[in-house]
Amino acid sequence: MSADKKATTPSGTHAWVSFRPEIKVLDCTIRDGGLMNNSHFADDCVRAVYAANAAAGVDYMEIGYKNSPGLFSPDEYGCWRHCGEDDMRRIVGDNPTSLKLCAMADAEKSDYKTDILPKQDSVLDMIRVACYIHQVPLALEMVKDAHDKGYETTVNLMAASTVHESELDAGLELLCQSGAKAIYLVDSFGHFYSEEVRNLIRKYLGFAKPCGMEVGIHAHNNLQLGFSNTIEAIVEGANYVDATMAGLGRGAGNCLLELLLGFLHNPKYKLRPVLECIEEFIEPLQAELGWGFDIPYMLTGLYNRHPRSAMAHNAGENKGKHVLFYDRVLEDQ
Amino acid sequence: MSADKKATTPSGTHAWVSFRPEIKVLDCTIRDGGLMNNSHFADDCVRAVYAANAAAGVDYMEIGYKNSPGLFSPDEYGCWRHCGEDDMRRIVGDNPTSLKLCAMADAEKSDYKTDILPKQDSVLDMIRVACYIHQVPLALEMVKDAHDKGYETTVNLMAASTVHESELDAGLELLCQSGAKAIYLVDSFGHFYSEEVRNLIRKYLGFAKPCGMEVGIHAHNNLQLGFSNTIEAIVEGANYVDATMAGLGRGAGNCLLELLLGFLHNPKYKLRPVLECIEEFIEPLQAELGWGFDIPYMLTGLYNRHPRSAMAHNAGENKGKHVLFYDRVLEDQ
Repeated sequence: MSADKKATTPSGTHAWVSFRPEIKVLDCTIRDGGLMNNSHFADDCVRAVYAANAAAGVDYMEIGYKNSPGLFSPDEYGCWRHCGEDDMRRIVGDNPTSLKLCAMADAEKSDYKTDILPKQDSVLDMIRVACYIHQVPLALEMVKDAHDKGYETTVNLMAASTVHESELDAGLELLCQSGAKAIYLVDSFGHFYSEEVRNLIRKYLGFAKPCGMEVGIHAHNNLQLGFSNTIEAIVEGANYVDATMAGLGRGAGNCLLELLLGFLHNPKYKLRPVLECIEEFIEPLQAELGWGFDIPYMLTGLYNRHPRSAMAHNAGENKGKHVLFYDRVLEDQ
Repeated sequence: MSADKKATTPSGTHAWVSFRPEIKVLDCTIRDGGLMNNSHFADDCVRAVYAANAAAGVDYMEIGYKNSPGLFSPDEYGCWRHCGEDDMRRIVGDNPTSLKLCAMADAEKSDYKTDILPKQDSVLDMIRVACYIHQVPLALEMVKDAHDKGYETTVNLMAASTVHESELDAGLELLCQSGAKAIYLVDSFGHFYSEEVRNLIRKYLGFAKPCGMEVGIHAHNNLQLGFSNTIEAIVEGANYVDATMAGLGRGAGNCLLELLLGFLHNPKYKLRPVLECIEEFIEPLQAELGWGFDIPYMLTGLYNRHPRSAMAHNAGENKGKHVLFYDRVLEDQ
């Protein structure tokens, strides 16, 4: 550890007073939030999120998905499901800020070969490849395609809480040969306790570090542990950290960006622009989109389920009938 | 460690699969929630909370405060601020359940000598003495009074995040001579990160264990860490654990009982009765009482302040104006 690093990262029992300059904060408000509104965000909202992230010193903003218009019809889905170059440039111009832009490409849902342009023709800086464990070979091809086109990449192995450890090991070994900047521990179902996050981050680091890769964390808030699990991952050595403004994201939502910036003591991060954007643009969406912790999401997290059954319950006439949902979850065990 | 304990508490990396039978869960919904409505709860609500706790296998229910009617006028405050014997018995009869009942007596706010009856005349099982660091000598007298009358006791040293460590040591040394069942780490302002909880629980255990006392945790949710800090405390050895239904409590609220019961794997705890009570009696209070995480409470937690300024902000015409509140908090630094 260099003297410089020592100056900002004391060891011992009060490490939080300091900061770790290697940590990169990635805001995925528009991308993950797009799962609650089919990626229909007004331009002024996306522009405000972009401006706030730039002013707050956030490192990356994920502006949406690079997914197939054939699978996600532009009649039904907003433009942030596809992130066409014109749409992005309408918001960010040529992005004259230090905020890097990224988009997520889902395995089997992205026409990545054609829809992801060469880097020199795009305002994007990074492609995040998302896959399930059975899609690892495809994810590797997608990462290579993005590298060949000139992008930074990460690999986000989703629903890690449903993968047996021996298969996870095999997947990590392959994905850590991809040359991506980082591999993410993704708690899609918001299922993990801190103990599991700690063990898994150590496992991920064991595969990633020898390959020169970093480890990231993407947490959901089903058990109100999105923020604390992110802290746990950071303490264990994760340097790529996802969060969203006001936690906007699928179901129970994500680790809150405003909590994360309050925790990280890197002076480059500013809380005020994020609060401003939340107050003016994100909280007004709450009544319509209805993300955030509640008991049905707690139950899918607790029982390690996809949140879709809770989303359906909350969208129907039985919203608020928690015991009914609980009984159904137990029936399906 | 006995063979019996080994059977239920494996060491190693997957301890959460098991449970620790020594852990006592204390529901303080009516007591802490009473700070949001001057302890005005309808009888059917208190009765439902009592019945749910009994059915759920919760160990203790704190039914309110044993505070002075002179200081907290019955014209302004509901009966759960004083916990008169008739009021309690109207709800619980002679309490023919295994759920123990307790009330909190605040130092300098309780006419404890007269208002706390001898145990044989009361349906209460335990008195929880709450004090600030400058009230330690008075707290010791209050604990002795309760012991002399035949009660179990705990000591809850409030606002620990504002106490210098050397003074805390002196306070803990004194309070651990009280013979109370447990001494609580109380994070009144919801300020602590897990690292601090870990260090403090170790410190508290260092004083408490040699005196035969247990350590408890009472967490608030200003940084969405109420539950995770409770887990951290449990992992470190805290055996008395406070929580409230739907987190009902002052400001950002408390560790959620439903999350806690989901985490503890002691088969005696049942989640369903708690969900039922929340659905029917607690969530309907949300619109009026408005407890729970939001940005003003986050800011008082982050900057280690009493939540009263956030409560006042949220009750006034500037509710929702987070940036205004942020600027005021920073001005007051």
